[in-house]
This record gives sequence, C-alpha cells and structure tokens, in this order.
Amino acid sequence: MPADEFDIIARLFAPLAASEGARGLRDDAALYAGKIMTTDAIVEGVHFLSDDPIETVAQKALRVNLSDLAAKGARAEAVLLTLIWPQSRASAEIEGFARGLAADLGAFGVALIGGDTTSTPGPLTISITAFGAPLGPRTPARADAKPGQDLWVTGEIGDAMIGLEALSGPPSVVLSLEDQDAVIARYRVPQPRLAFAKAIADYAAAAMDVSDGLAQDAGKIAAASGVRLVIDVAAAPVSAAAESWIAAGGERAALLGGGDDYEILFTADAGLRDAIVAAGAETKLRVTRIGRVEAGAGVVDETGAPLVHGYRHQLGA
Amino acid sequence: MPADEFDIIARLFAPLAASEGARGLRDDAALYAGKIMTTDAIVEGVHFLSDDPIETVAQKALRVNLSDLAAKGARAEAVLLTLIWPQSRASAEIEGFARGLAADLGAFGVALIGGDTTSTPGPLTISITAFGAPLGPRTPARADAKPGQDLWVTGEIGDAMIGLEALSGPPSVVLSLEDQDAVIARYRVPQPRLAFAKAIADYAAAAMDVSDGLAQDAGKIAAASGVRLVIDVAAAPVSAAAESWIAAGGERAALLGGGDDYEILFTADAGLRDAIVAAGAETKLRVTRIGRVEAGAGVVDETGAPLVHGYRHQLGA
Repeated sequence: MPADEFDIIARLFAPLAASEGARGLRDDAALYAGKIMTTDAIVEGVHFLSDDPIETVAQKALRVNLSDLAAKGARAEAVLLTLIWPQSRASAEIEGFARGLAADLGAFGVALIGGDTTSTPGPLTISITAFGAPLGPRTPARADAKPGQDLWVTGEIGDAMIGLEALSGPPSVVLSLEDQDAVIARYRVPQPRLAFAKAIADYAAAAMDVSDGLAQDAGKIAAASGVRLVIDVAAAPVSAAAESWIAAGGERAALLGGGDDYEILFTADAGLRDAIVAAGAETKLRVTRIGRVEAGAGVVDETGAPLVHGYRHQLGA
Repeated sequence: MPADEFDIIARLFAPLAASEGARGLRDDAALYAGKIMTTDAIVEGVHFLSDDPIETVAQKALRVNLSDLAAKGARAEAVLLTLIWPQSRASAEIEGFARGLAADLGAFGVALIGGDTTSTPGPLTISITAFGAPLGPRTPARADAKPGQDLWVTGEIGDAMIGLEALSGPPSVVLSLEDQDAVIARYRVPQPRLAFAKAIADYAAAAMDVSDGLAQDAGKIAAASGVRLVIDVAAAPVSAAAESWIAAGGERAALLGGGDDYEILFTADAGLRDAIVAAGAETKLRVTRIGRVEAGAGVVDETGAPLVHGYRHQLGA
C-alpha cells in the first residue's frame, strides 16, 4: 500500500507529539508559547512550476503559511524563512525572491525574524514557519465540526486548478486571455484570507485552509471530527473566469478536486448565519454556505454520492 | 562575484527584518514570544550522504537545531518538522526516520508539535524549527565579543571532518577501524551541548555553534562584534582519534577548517575562567580556552597569520 502524507503523519509521528498544543499532529497549526504556529514548504515541480516568476514563488511560499494562520483565526506576526537554492539556478534570481518577499511582508505587516539558507543539487525549495496571535479565546481545529452545523467557504474555488491546467500544456478548455491571466494569477499568488481571521476566531467551529482541493480537505474535517459533510456542489462559489471555463465545457464538480485554492473551509452553528454574512460584507469577502454537517462519515453531494475528488501527496517510492 | 549565504542574508534579507528579536538576521536564533527559536535545514548530498543510515539522518536534522539552542543558552522544548521526501526513495524508510527522531526526542526531552510533509523530485531535505526557553536573562549573540575576553570552545574539533573524509573515498590518512568508526559517528550524529546551555547563559558574552568550521565561524563572531579573534591552534581540543590522524600525517590546523563540529564557540570575561572550568567539570564536558579577543578584525593564529580555513555554502550558479 502506498504511503501517503496523512497516513504517515498519523501513524508514525503523531505518537511523538504528546503535548496538547500539537493536537496529535492532525491539525494545520500548533499552539505554543501563547502563539499559533504553522510550517509549510513548497517545492519546485510539486507546488510551483520551474518557470513561475521568482517573485511569485516567494509570495506563494509566504502566503500558503499565512493562509494557515487565517484559517486558525490568528493575526500573522512573524516568519522564519528557510531558502534551499538550487546549485544550477542563477544566484541573481535571489534578488527577485527577496523583492517578492519584501513586498508581501510589508503588505501583510509580517516580520521576517530569522531563517536559514543552503544550496541543493535538487529543486528550489522554500520552507517557512509562520507565527500568529490568536484573535479569540479558541483556535478552530479540524476536529471541531458537529452535526447540525453549516459548512462555509470563503472566496472562490477552482481558479488555481484551471490556472495550473493552462500553464501545464494545451488546456482541455480554451479560455479568453483575460480569464487565463486571472486563473494563472490565482495559481501563482494565493490570497490568504487574513481579513477574515477575526470572523473565524469568533464564529467558526472547525476550520482549515483548502490547499489539496475542497472535497479532499473537507474529508479531513469529516475524518478528524467523526462526521459526514454534505456539499451542495452547485452552491460552490466560482469566479467569472471559472464560469466561462464551465460554459466552455469544464466540469463544475472537478473544481472541488483542484488544489491550491487557499480559501478557508469552516463549519459554524446555524444561528451564526447572519453574523457570518455580515462579517463577509464588512471584509468585502465572498463567503458562501455550501453545505452542512451530519452524523456519519465522509463527504457526499446532495444526492448522497461520495465526492472523492482531490489528490493526495504521494511520498516516496 | 559569486553570491554566498552570508552576503545574501546580510544584503537582501536583513533589511526585511526590522524587529529587535530578529537581530538583523545576523545571528543563529531569533527571539519571539519570550522564546528562542532557530531553523536549520539539511539536504542530502550537502549536509549528509545518500547512504547515511536514515535513523542518523533524522538525528542530525534534529541535533543541528538543538545545537543552536544550546549555543544561545536555551533549554530545548519543542520542534516543528518539515520532511521533504524524494519520490525515488522507498517510503518504507520513513519508519526508520521516525524511529531515529523518536529516540532523540525522548533523549532530549523535546516535543514534536507540528510539521509538514511533502514529496520532492530532488534530494531528501529536512527542515526543522526548534524552540527553547532562555536559561538566563540574556541570549548571547554573535555580536557580543569584546577585546580582553577569552575565546573558548566545548568538546573536540575536527572529528566530523575526518569522518566525512573517511566516508567520501580513499582517505588521505589511514585510521584504525575503531578511530574511523568514532569519527564517522561524529559526522553523522552531532552532540548538541544542551547540558552546557546554562553555563552559556550565565557566562558567555558572544556565542554560536560551530557548523562551518571553527576558523570560519570564529570569523562570523569577529565580523559581527567588530573585533579580532586570536586562536592558539595548538590549544584547539581534538579527540584521541584526531590525534591519531595527526600522527599519521594529518594537519592539525586543517581541523579548524572542517565543518559539522556542532560545538559551542564562545567568548567570556577573563574573570570567569574558574567558573567556566567548574561548569565543564560539573557537566562532564571538555571546555577549552583556545584564544582571546583583541581590537581589530579577522581571525589569526598566535603568529598573526590569518586563519582562513572553513568553507562557505555556495548558493546558486
């Protein structure tokens, strides 16, 4: 049986994580010293493409981590940067990397407090550890979904998948140049929903950011919480570009299987609907109720059919 | 001019690090949330060899980080692990990695609180962020050396260099099998001097761990502090195996240029000599006074000749 990321974490490393703040390694963030912390690495050829602009690679490395903090209801404060630079890549590009990182650190008000640089005979790899301050008394975990709650998602789903398809070769669906630029930008430069972090801290029960595809990540909440999530596929929020993609022959449900959305998927009590809608309006962020939590297991659509889209990172041979 | 790690950090990234705890990125650790934190990555083919046992690779990844905490006078508390696993390496080896890590976490009383795993088309890469609690009111920086102070180092220098030479092909100096095993073990499994961390917090002025070679790292303290370090090469502490290596033709001074020692290099006021010797005796750790701090710049031996051994990580093409 091929090992995969989630099995490996759960089976091998979780027993090593005895402290309460580690959450058995089954969450996207840890609690330590009164802070919320998360670490995510991106690898050339896995999480970004070799010819992506180096400035956007720096932005993506930072933003996937800030996205985790937003999904845990934290204000982003500081990062540690580990830059693992290919021996074969021009060192002049490091300036572009620093430029992209500097712009984003400024935009998000985050301090670079330390790091490490080393060379590699392999692909460009960036590992960032991000630290945030909790914006409320509790930090939503994957494990906090309860039957009867609503399922929500911020922003729009699937653009990054369409963008990656456009970058990866002849696309199955032809888009206008404008739409193509929009979805490529979404693939390269995620939008961490830090403006919505306070609402997550105030209203979310379970929450996580969507990086491996909406359906796949919903499955992680379902598994961690011991519940079933029912998703109304038609309600999943998509962009104008994605609507064009669907109109030109793309399958709407496939968008729930794409990665790199970096939106926040969360559950909340039904009595909080008005408050959540108001918080979305206040932060000018689309927030969409896409389903509900039921007793049971797995992720299904309104007809009860399993939604098994999404991918799993395969580790090793 | 080829870019290197230290130039890059100083020139490009340090301006991004405005907070006091970042120390302008010119230190090995950052201060945040009342804790000391450090991050170091190790890369297959750069910091360890492809055929090193996977258990010792896990140990090295952890220990190089714990060594940084020890050199800053901190008690190690917790780590985040980012495991970047080659698509071509058997996933069954991940169990050995977890075994090696688990044993060391237990031995050092450190909690694994979170992390990330991903695959890579490149070499095995492990990035760890380690957190510690300061054991005294101040955290020694590279920049804290002052003329008149003594220069000290813990443990023994050069074994790891000899060990790497033994592993890398026909060695220039032939050792007994027993000596060879000892130096290879030192290369593969560093010994973080956490038992001496309290003494560092109490007595050290400037301090850092020696990873790129004693002379090279002394140069970093000299540069950060704006001083000259004078090293008595004959006083540099070496193991019985290294003495055999020297007796068989190895050059003593070369040992100051080897990497991977993971000993603590520190300066201290001359009035603290007895206290430091006593702390070494109490913790059963060899601690050796190897030189002094003077006004000036650079690192020289007793004759005033520059000690320019050591290597610099080369980044990029």
